[in-house]
Amino acid sequence: MNGGEAGAAAPFPDWMRAVQTQVEAALSAALPPAEAIPARLHQAMRYVTLGGGKRVRPLLAFAAGELSGATPERLQTVASAVEMIHVYSLVHDDLPCMDDDTLRRGRPTCHVEYDEPTALLVGDSLQSLAFDLLACDTGGDTGGDAAQQLELVRLLAHASGSCGMAGGQAIDLGSVGQALTQPELELMHALKTGALIRAAVLLGALSGAPLDAAQRDALDRFAKRVGLLFQVVDDILDCTASTATLGKTAGKDAASDKPTYVSLLGLERAREFAADLRAQALAALAVFGARGQRLIELTDFITHRKF
Amino acid sequence: MNGGEAGAAAPFPDWMRAVQTQVEAALSAALPPAEAIPARLHQAMRYVTLGGGKRVRPLLAFAAGELSGATPERLQTVASAVEMIHVYSLVHDDLPCMDDDTLRRGRPTCHVEYDEPTALLVGDSLQSLAFDLLACDTGGDTGGDAAQQLELVRLLAHASGSCGMAGGQAIDLGSVGQALTQPELELMHALKTGALIRAAVLLGALSGAPLDAAQRDALDRFAKRVGLLFQVVDDILDCTASTATLGKTAGKDAASDKPTYVSLLGLERAREFAADLRAQALAALAVFGARGQRLIELTDFITHRKF
Repeated sequence: MNGGEAGAAAPFPDWMRAVQTQVEAALSAALPPAEAIPARLHQAMRYVTLGGGKRVRPLLAFAAGELSGATPERLQTVASAVEMIHVYSLVHDDLPCMDDDTLRRGRPTCHVEYDEPTALLVGDSLQSLAFDLLACDTGGDTGGDAAQQLELVRLLAHASGSCGMAGGQAIDLGSVGQALTQPELELMHALKTGALIRAAVLLGALSGAPLDAAQRDALDRFAKRVGLLFQVVDDILDCTASTATLGKTAGKDAASDKPTYVSLLGLERAREFAADLRAQALAALAVFGARGQRLIELTDFITHRKF
Repeated sequence: MNGGEAGAAAPFPDWMRAVQTQVEAALSAALPPAEAIPARLHQAMRYVTLGGGKRVRPLLAFAAGELSGATPERLQTVASAVEMIHVYSLVHDDLPCMDDDTLRRGRPTCHVEYDEPTALLVGDSLQSLAFDLLACDTGGDTGGDAAQQLELVRLLAHASGSCGMAGGQAIDLGSVGQALTQPELELMHALKTGALIRAAVLLGALSGAPLDAAQRDALDRFAKRVGLLFQVVDDILDCTASTATLGKTAGKDAASDKPTYVSLLGLERAREFAADLRAQALAALAVFGARGQRLIELTDFITHRKF
C-alpha cells in the first residue's frame, strides 16, 4: 500500500510514478528553501536534487518497505536520505578533479551551472542533510522507535563511507588503465554502487515490522545481487545507449580506459551475467511470497531499462 | 573526572594533555586500519586526522561533559565525531578550488601529500564516519540511550550542513572583496566556525545526565559566545602570529581580501571584543557552579592562546 494512491494492486508503471512523485515532494520539503541564506548554496542543492533521475534507490526502498508493511511517511524519509547521499556522490564524482563531467540527468553538472566550490559544498551539505533527516524522523503517527532509527543511521553511514560508496570510488580511481580480475571488479562495484543500493533495500525493509533472521538473510542476498545487477546493466548501457537517452555522457568508461563488465566479459557474456544475477535476486525473494511482488517487478525494470 | 588519570583536581595543562591523549587514541581506534582496502584512502584519512591539531572541539566536549557527569567512553565518541567533521572541513577547505592551501598543522595538506581526488574522498569519508561512530556508540557500561544518541546525531548533522558549517563556508566564499557589516560577519562566523564549536559543547554536555531548561539555555549562550570568541582570536592571530607558530599559512585572510574582525574593527578593538566575549561566556557558566571549572579554564586558554 505504500505507493500511496497507487497501492499494491496498481500496475507497476503507476506505482512507480506514484512513488517518484512522493519522493520528489519529500525531497523538496526536506531541502532548505531556495531563498534561505546562503541562497546560492540552497538553490544549487535544489538544482541537483530535484526534477530528475530515475530514483532507483527510492523505488527500492519503497518496494522493500512492502516486505515489512512500512508506512509511506517512514519510507519517504529513508528514501530521501538515501537519494541525497546518491546525489551528493554524483555531484562530487562530476567535479573536474574526478570524472570532470559536464552533463548529468540531461542538464549541466553542478560545477558547470554554478561553480566548483559551490558544487563541493553542495555535496558536503547533502550528506549532512541525509543524516539530519534520518535522525529527525519521529516515525509519523506510529510513534518513533529511536533504536530502529539509529540502526538506519548506522547502515546509511557505513554504506556511504570509506568501507562503502566512497571506498569504491577510491578503488575506481586507482583502477584506471589497470587490468582488474572479475573478483576485483566485483569488490569495486560492491562498494561503489552496491553498498548504497543495498542500504536502500535494507533501510526500506527495516522501516516497518521487524524481520526474522532468515528474512534478513534473504533480503541481504537479494540486495547484494540487485546492486551488482544494476552496475552490470549500467556498463552495458554505457556502451550501447546514446548520450541523449542516458542524460549523461555515454561511452565514458571505455574512453577513459576504466574497467567495466563489458570490457572484461564482452557484451554477450555481460548480458548473460545480468540474467544470472536477476535469477539469483528473484530466488532470494521467494521467502517473502506475495509481499515481494514490487521488488520482483522492480528487479525486472532494472534488468530491462533502456536508460 | 572525565580527563581520565588527570581528573577534576588536576592542573589544567595536565587535564588538557590527558584529554588530547585519550582523543588521539579514540580517533586512531575509530579510523579504519591503514592497510584496510582501499589502503591509500585509509592512509590519507589517518594522515589528516592523527598526530596534530589543538583538539579544541574535543577539549570543549570533555569540559562540557563535566557539567553532566558524562563518562569518558561517551565523551571519546562524541569528541571524535566532532573532530572528524572538523578535519573533513579542513581537508575540503584546503582544496585548490577553495583556499588552495599547502600547509596545515605544520605538514603538507592532504591534496599535496596525496592528490586532489583522494582529498575529496577523505573529507567525504570522514563525514560519514563521524555519523557512523555516533550511531554505533552503545554508551559503554552505562547502557545506551538511543533517543539521546539520536539527538546527538541530529545536532551534529545540523551543525555541519548548509544551515551550519558548510553554509558559513558558502557565505565566506561569496564575501571575498565585499565590505561586510559586523552583523553579517557574525552570521558568517556563527555558521562557519561557531556551529561546530557549539555542537562540541552541546554534545559533550548532553552525553551525561539530563540538563534542565535553564541549564540548557545557559549552555547554549556559553557555546555561542565561545564559538565567536574562538574566531575573533583566530583573526587576531592570523595577522599577529607567524606561519611557523600557527602551523598554517599566516596573513592569508588579509592577503585574500577576506573580511575579518581585525579588518573590520582594527586590532585594538578586536582585542576588546574578545575580552567582552570571554566575560559573557564566563557569566553564562555561573549557573553550573564548580562543575563549570574546566570550561572556565578552557575559555581562558582559547582567549590567550598563541597558536
